[in-house]
Amino acid sequence: MELYSYCRSSASFRVRIALELKGLAYDYRAVQLIKNEQLSEAYTAVSPARLVPQLVDGDVSIGQSLAIIQYLDELHPQPSLLPGDAQARARVRSLALDIACEVHPLNNLRVLRYLVREMKIGDEAKNLWYRHWVEQGLAVVERRLADEPQTGHHCHGDTPTLADCVLVPQIFNAQRYGCRLQHVPTVMRIFETCMQLPAFQRAQPSACPDFEP
Amino acid sequence: MELYSYCRSSASFRVRIALELKGLAYDYRAVQLIKNEQLSEAYTAVSPARLVPQLVDGDVSIGQSLAIIQYLDELHPQPSLLPGDAQARARVRSLALDIACEVHPLNNLRVLRYLVREMKIGDEAKNLWYRHWVEQGLAVVERRLADEPQTGHHCHGDTPTLADCVLVPQIFNAQRYGCRLQHVPTVMRIFETCMQLPAFQRAQPSACPDFEP
Repeated sequence: MELYSYCRSSASFRVRIALELKGLAYDYRAVQLIKNEQLSEAYTAVSPARLVPQLVDGDVSIGQSLAIIQYLDELHPQPSLLPGDAQARARVRSLALDIACEVHPLNNLRVLRYLVREMKIGDEAKNLWYRHWVEQGLAVVERRLADEPQTGHHCHGDTPTLADCVLVPQIFNAQRYGCRLQHVPTVMRIFETCMQLPAFQRAQPSACPDFEP
Repeated sequence: MELYSYCRSSASFRVRIALELKGLAYDYRAVQLIKNEQLSEAYTAVSPARLVPQLVDGDVSIGQSLAIIQYLDELHPQPSLLPGDAQARARVRSLALDIACEVHPLNNLRVLRYLVREMKIGDEAKNLWYRHWVEQGLAVVERRLADEPQTGHHCHGDTPTLADCVLVPQIFNAQRYGCRLQHVPTVMRIFETCMQLPAFQRAQPSACPDFEP
């Protein structure tokens, strides 16, 4: 398998975690978003959406991190990243989507670039925008994780699921942009638990071949 | 089952389509986003994220449209909204996410409000923002639907899937905001095919009990 990835892309990070949790070997193909490599003709042939991550598995090519992780989970079910019953799966998916649809899309690189270049937003307003969606979005996740009885050492029970794969990269982003995190103690407790695990450590940006400090 | 919905919420519209395709009866509970009813204490008890849609099925309560639709599909598998093999499911999910993560989150009501109220963006710049993400996002979906051999009368094969449930409401939004659609003929061909079906007609905003012209 080949994973087209950028070290600081949190959507790529989600998939790297899933691959590591499942112990699946893969070739890392770096796509430097910061140099706009995703817009090249060569990469458009790999990913019609010009986004990372993209997983190539033989003649199968898949974009969108949540679709990739569910594909991996269906083909390589152990350890499972989605629980066994429909109600629990819905909870895990909805937690993942609370971040993947409500927080992350507002803060990715192309959106920040549009704010700066097209809307002439200054740095301060851009950072306020960033922090607003992260802090508000994580507060929702906190309320759920703190209140719902299915929360365990991880987002759902005591082993990592799709929800943890999405949560951890969002915290890396939040820390990088200096977001407040005091209001989300359950989120941070689960983040620390995840980061004790070798799979999460091996998947983090600083462990990627294309990382530059 | 009860569905908390707002007629013009496209995420609610996705779930209404799925319920209608499966012939599942449900009680419609209107949440007037335009009056901020989603922020009330009563509604926060239903939906901790203060978002629509929220499905309540006995003692199960689920947010996030894509999680709800997959839950419905697992409990009521006929007609199926996800294909039978992992590769095809990945394609359908990734098409749905190409809209649900890359287009829709940038254009929902709370984001437009932030642009206007916090960033003091004028109407013209707001509409440019809206159209930019819709037109660019739909161009990606068009490229995939036009090029990939699995496309049929619908996004994947000849029956509606999760991808069609997500595509159709996005076109309603695009039309409402006067977005260009000439560059996405395959998207529009599939949209028209969907809108011939009674399930899509019954789910549309103008067919909702809370619709006001």
